[in-house]
Amino acid sequence: MAAARIGIIGTGWVGTSVAFSTLVSGHAGELWLHDQRGAVAEGEALDLADGAAFYPHCDVRAVALEQLREADIVVLAAGRNGRPDESRLDLLRDNARIAAGIGRALAGFGGIVLVVTNPVDVLTRVVAAASGLPPERVIGTGTLLDTARLRERLAGRLGLSPLSVHAQVIGEHGDSSVMLWSGARVGGLALRDWAGWRAEDEALLAQQVRRAAYEVIRRKGATNHAIGLVTAELIGCIVRDERRLLPVSRVQDLPGGLRGVALSLPALVGANGAVQVTEPAMDEAERQALAASATVLDQAFRSLAG
Amino acid sequence: MAAARIGIIGTGWVGTSVAFSTLVSGHAGELWLHDQRGAVAEGEALDLADGAAFYPHCDVRAVALEQLREADIVVLAAGRNGRPDESRLDLLRDNARIAAGIGRALAGFGGIVLVVTNPVDVLTRVVAAASGLPPERVIGTGTLLDTARLRERLAGRLGLSPLSVHAQVIGEHGDSSVMLWSGARVGGLALRDWAGWRAEDEALLAQQVRRAAYEVIRRKGATNHAIGLVTAELIGCIVRDERRLLPVSRVQDLPGGLRGVALSLPALVGANGAVQVTEPAMDEAERQALAASATVLDQAFRSLAG
Amino acid sequence: MAAARIGIIGTGWVGTSVAFSTLVSGHAGELWLHDQRGAVAEGEALDLADGAAFYPHCDVRAVALEQLREADIVVLAAGRNGRPDESRLDLLRDNARIAAGIGRALAGFGGIVLVVTNPVDVLTRVVAAASGLPPERVIGTGTLLDTARLRERLAGRLGLSPLSVHAQVIGEHGDSSVMLWSGARVGGLALRDWAGWRAEDEALLAQQVRRAAYEVIRRKGATNHAIGLVTAELIGCIVRDERRLLPVSRVQDLPGGLRGVALSLPALVGANGAVQVTEPAMDEAERQALAASATVLDQAFRSLAG
Amino acid sequence: MAAARIGIIGTGWVGTSVAFSTLVSGHAGELWLHDQRGAVAEGEALDLADGAAFYPHCDVRAVALEQLREADIVVLAAGRNGRPDESRLDLLRDNARIAAGIGRALAGFGGIVLVVTNPVDVLTRVVAAASGLPPERVIGTGTLLDTARLRERLAGRLGLSPLSVHAQVIGEHGDSSVMLWSGARVGGLALRDWAGWRAEDEALLAQQVRRAAYEVIRRKGATNHAIGLVTAELIGCIVRDERRLLPVSRVQDLPGGLRGVALSLPALVGANGAVQVTEPAMDEAERQALAASATVLDQAFRSLAG
Repeated sequence: MAAARIGIIGTGWVGTSVAFSTLVSGHAGELWLHDQRGAVAEGEALDLADGAAFYPHCDVRAVALEQLREADIVVLAAGRNGRPDESRLDLLRDNARIAAGIGRALAGFGGIVLVVTNPVDVLTRVVAAASGLPPERVIGTGTLLDTARLRERLAGRLGLSPLSVHAQVIGEHGDSSVMLWSGARVGGLALRDWAGWRAEDEALLAQQVRRAAYEVIRRKGATNHAIGLVTAELIGCIVRDERRLLPVSRVQDLPGGLRGVALSLPALVGANGAVQVTEPAMDEAERQALAASATVLDQAFRSLAG
Repeated sequence: MAAARIGIIGTGWVGTSVAFSTLVSGHAGELWLHDQRGAVAEGEALDLADGAAFYPHCDVRAVALEQLREADIVVLAAGRNGRPDESRLDLLRDNARIAAGIGRALAGFGGIVLVVTNPVDVLTRVVAAASGLPPERVIGTGTLLDTARLRERLAGRLGLSPLSVHAQVIGEHGDSSVMLWSGARVGGLALRDWAGWRAEDEALLAQQVRRAAYEVIRRKGATNHAIGLVTAELIGCIVRDERRLLPVSRVQDLPGGLRGVALSLPALVGANGAVQVTEPAMDEAERQALAASATVLDQAFRSLAG
Repeated sequence: MAAARIGIIGTGWVGTSVAFSTLVSGHAGELWLHDQRGAVAEGEALDLADGAAFYPHCDVRAVALEQLREADIVVLAAGRNGRPDESRLDLLRDNARIAAGIGRALAGFGGIVLVVTNPVDVLTRVVAAASGLPPERVIGTGTLLDTARLRERLAGRLGLSPLSVHAQVIGEHGDSSVMLWSGARVGGLALRDWAGWRAEDEALLAQQVRRAAYEVIRRKGATNHAIGLVTAELIGCIVRDERRLLPVSRVQDLPGGLRGVALSLPALVGANGAVQVTEPAMDEAERQALAASATVLDQAFRSLAG
Repeated sequence: MAAARIGIIGTGWVGTSVAFSTLVSGHAGELWLHDQRGAVAEGEALDLADGAAFYPHCDVRAVALEQLREADIVVLAAGRNGRPDESRLDLLRDNARIAAGIGRALAGFGGIVLVVTNPVDVLTRVVAAASGLPPERVIGTGTLLDTARLRERLAGRLGLSPLSVHAQVIGEHGDSSVMLWSGARVGGLALRDWAGWRAEDEALLAQQVRRAAYEVIRRKGATNHAIGLVTAELIGCIVRDERRLLPVSRVQDLPGGLRGVALSLPALVGANGAVQVTEPAMDEAERQALAASATVLDQAFRSLAG
């Protein structure tokens, strides 16, 4: 019996939302916040602790980076946002440098690392490489968020609860993500057999899911609530050893031949990490889209070495 | 804004478990208990109220049958258990008489009736007929419990969380229930394509699910916890207007031609009841099994008139 | 049975935290966000809705101000933060003008208004006056947050859970707040009789509580998590008609003679608002401090007319 | 990080309610049930596991007594109920024999024992003696239940939430329990100063609290829900190391001179058990009543040796 110790690196919008969702979920016994800007982590910890009477007992405090090695799970939410005048690669390079530094600091770490910072798939691979940790213990939130978005929009389109809509997004968390329409199910029916479903809905909803982050950022400057909830769910799955199949990102060898790429496929998530990757049913178009997504991610990673 | 008023008729093992699960779920603002044995309902209400500091605020008390007409949802959990020396039909007749009496008392009722007492499908039809309420507002818990049992056993067999196993049971809550193996899914794969799944597992698990209640009753004399949790989940779905597709029992006309039979198919459950029944994908064997199940239930209902 | 409709005006740091805490608490069936910057409210609603699978069913959307008149509870979190180069009165005037406008728009409103924006006590009075609503239906979060902070710090000082420390802060939410040391209790003992408690702890902790917001703002630029949790707790208390005695702000006539001042005293909070104000036990120093706090608040309100 | 393993000995009404409340609270990662009637424990475990999709992930199963030595917390709920034709001492002797046997089986146990079976105070002392465990790790639920009942009835009398009524019961869980009226508080006031409170209410409510179990048993044959909730709360307090001051029973030396008696006083409960007993404020009558209660309990324990 030992309460879970959860550490979060980076207390910007996203890291703070992860912290809050984790607290109210009750999954953590100790919550450790770290930020390069030490005062910000301290301020967040103080503010969260002020509400201690309103969530399950948890000790919240700001800590030094070294302390996080004692955590059961470390969430990597550090990094900067893109700037209008720079290339996407510039951003990638900067965040990869940060992630690699943290990965090296976590070499020999005995717990599980959850990577949240974008581009999450490439950074998951960077952290895995820099830390030397086994691939099942460096997990990116990946398309778990895209999947939540797809189910929410499908639910809205069909007038149902998202809990009754089963559909997954795999591949890159981003532009090359792959919606698995061929396997989507509603109430025991294939979605494509659902009365009123139209083929053109697929392109429309895919577009909405891929642009979701953009639409939020355009309006409020960042996305944080949904990714915070998703990450807390993932933490709960690990802390409770739930053994759920969730689309998360990790380094893996792909069926098509690419080796060592990090992207999202359904993996069995529990106390030992994302231990077993499964290949979902795909039609030919989906299979090609996944291969393309893997290539995009592999090239992005290799561009870092350039 | 008005807290939901939930009434329960029958505070034996099952009704009491429904009451407890409903309280801790927080779905009720007022919980009204009624039992023919007035003192028992009073005793349960007192015992539950003694724990008031440990669940979301709810007013619990024993009430007269008439009071239940003011409820938003009435759960029918009254009835007796079978005796070793009687026929199954004897039990059916007695519980149907009780259910019909309650149904008549609920004529013109403005809320939703949830039937839990067994045989739940026949009694759902009896209550619908006796009350004159529209079919979407007389719902039997049906195969929602069988579905939970199937997912739990599949999860055990596969070493996964039940949340990652999607499979449904439809038809009768009982011996003629129909497991929809052809549509069962695990992590985006058809169950039948899952590595290590064997055709003979299906008969074995079907048998386990059908005998689950028997195995529990043989050991402890009754089943109550799981049905209490399932019913509270259904209550939450109605109170929050969740619009989930759940396999529940209601009177309906079946594709094959039988009219007015109550059995379980996925229905859209929300604030207005089980408003829209969907027909899940079935292979030919499953289709025939469903028709057979419907015939069994129709004959059982007609036997009451004999 | 009708799910509670909660509206929030102002989706800055504080309003957004109220929205999030309300969602995960499950108290709302519909959550309506409004902001003068329409796109920001839309962005927050989109981001929150993306996580719909991870909190109890609730419909979240951005709405026009008029729509809020249909809500059961409206939370006023609009207003601006102070600027370094302005007087405190400048800030007060600006936020009071916003609050008065919203108050007038809510004239005849049938629900309850929760005022969160600072200076919360003066704005509670402004909204009550501008809306013409009865005083029990215009409630400021007041010293509920100060009370949470005091209990958290006392708990830390004593090595106990905040749930085992009973102490209240009344009066102004701000510099003239009054800690009721004379009535503070720990485990059935007066705090002042607790082994190891020192008289000098009182001034120290009072200072910490009064400076808590400042310490957080200095580090992260705003306070939002704790006030969000506190406000969601208050919403739950109203939605569930819990009838708890909580230190909240409302317009009232004070024992000492001042009439119509809004400040915090323990009030009975339930479905009808903050309906019954009680006067807690106070020693002479506390009584004088409360009178002084009331005078400060009365003058601040009157300064608006100047 | 290790999910808490909770064991329960005795799966009658009370043990089963403890199991259910523990499951839905989410405090356990593994729940182990044991009963002398092995099939009953198996049946309860099967029934609970059937609802696995509806509570936080937890592995439930029936186990042999030896397995419980691996638990973090063992709940002792075994024992029989009284028979009409026997003396109270006969019952005490039988349950003490059972408790002593279990105590001996737990010699050297590394976790915490929670005693629930009545008479809980004497059995707590029996288990402590038979197991040789330190007194802080053998805890009886004691007057935690009486305290919940007192607060619930006070709340009803005053028209308030039980969360706003602070009052404790100490001493024996039973006829000689001591209500601490002198220290009872409502909203920052002494209860005795609350408008409308009458001195005669105290005797009336004390009588109601002392007779609460009797009134429930007379109507439904047993009490189980409230004690189940109370015990799950206590388990949560230990699992999360909450360090709350709760009136629970443990062996202690009393101020008046009696040594080694088990009865309830506020104790600091956390991961290490009930580590620090505090003496609440009492008036002279309460002090005498506590001494009398201790004497009753000491004599009952000594009668076992006779």
